[in-house]
Amino acid sequence: MSDLLQVLQWRYATKKMNPAKAVPQDKVDYIAEAVRLTASSSGLQPYELLVVTNPALREQIQAVAWNQAQVTECSHLLVFAAWDNYTAERINQMFDLVNEERGSINAGWEAYRQQLLNSYPQRDAETNYQHAARQAYIGVGTALIAAAEQHVDCTPMEGFDPAKVDEILNLSARGLRSVVILPLGYREEAGDWLVNLKKVRRPREQFITELA
Amino acid sequence: MSDLLQVLQWRYATKKMNPAKAVPQDKVDYIAEAVRLTASSSGLQPYELLVVTNPALREQIQAVAWNQAQVTECSHLLVFAAWDNYTAERINQMFDLVNEERGSINAGWEAYRQQLLNSYPQRDAETNYQHAARQAYIGVGTALIAAAEQHVDCTPMEGFDPAKVDEILNLSARGLRSVVILPLGYREEAGDWLVNLKKVRRPREQFITELA
Repeated sequence: MSDLLQVLQWRYATKKMNPAKAVPQDKVDYIAEAVRLTASSSGLQPYELLVVTNPALREQIQAVAWNQAQVTECSHLLVFAAWDNYTAERINQMFDLVNEERGSINAGWEAYRQQLLNSYPQRDAETNYQHAARQAYIGVGTALIAAAEQHVDCTPMEGFDPAKVDEILNLSARGLRSVVILPLGYREEAGDWLVNLKKVRRPREQFITELA
Repeated sequence: MSDLLQVLQWRYATKKMNPAKAVPQDKVDYIAEAVRLTASSSGLQPYELLVVTNPALREQIQAVAWNQAQVTECSHLLVFAAWDNYTAERINQMFDLVNEERGSINAGWEAYRQQLLNSYPQRDAETNYQHAARQAYIGVGTALIAAAEQHVDCTPMEGFDPAKVDEILNLSARGLRSVVILPLGYREEAGDWLVNLKKVRRPREQFITELA
């Protein structure tokens, strides 16, 4: 990676992808690995990543995603799917894994486990899902950077019917709910209305406030 | 930046910061700029970034953030504050800015503006705030990477009373609600229980599913 700011300037929400150009598997793996490594609340990683290459599945998803062409023009469709709830099992699984990997038990960490066990599973599922979905957005922000670093194009999309995508991918059975989909591919400049337009952001003074 | 995966391996949620070591202003500006440049839904950037150095404000925030020491040990406290609602004014302001900066009006873009104007402002404020807050998490994921690229430590925190932080920073008057706080500083290894512990993530096969 040259420089994160350059990488962020390079990326844009690609509107037209070249269906003949597939992203190499090692680059897809790199992007997924970046998502796996990034942070999440309490380290629970309360979401999963689906990498959909199957054409029939992608056609079905496109039909419930405002027919956005990138869903089938891309070579790999990432689906960020958050836990539908925080359960004691899910929390314990992660804390147990941490203990196992570190080969030790930390008293503070165990107290923290109890704190989560005493609060998260008692909350309603929707509150927990919303919290988990927020964490998935950290993953989305990371994937955008990882893709751009590899000169892979992508288009983050919220414009789809989550319940229908959950059905197509059978996510409910796994306790997951789709949050964001992210086609990975390569831009087809000729048909992309956005590719040559200036990236616009609010000026610094309207976005950042210093309280000294 | 060397390599994003290395950067992600390097970072961790710093538990003890050295209050004598301040992050240089150019690095803080770089991190804020990365957040400003990253993606958001429809490009609305529905949140703002506050950079709090003021010691009295940080002491007040620490008191409503489970007394976490990094809030005052850090040199700069970033506060991600999402729009409390999507209004026609806010949507139009962004679309107008885009037209102005690009020096042209795009018919598809204008149709999209109308679509947002016909849906977002009619939804309840809480739904809109939740959507805006999710976008702020893209910014958080970006800030973590920007900081690590600059070898700056940070600790993303949800553990605070948002209503109290909103009051301390007078955010309601600006139509904002605090979402995540992120102390920026430098690790003090001697007092940090986490610094030498292994980073643990679910294995690839429990996080990623390929549907081919």
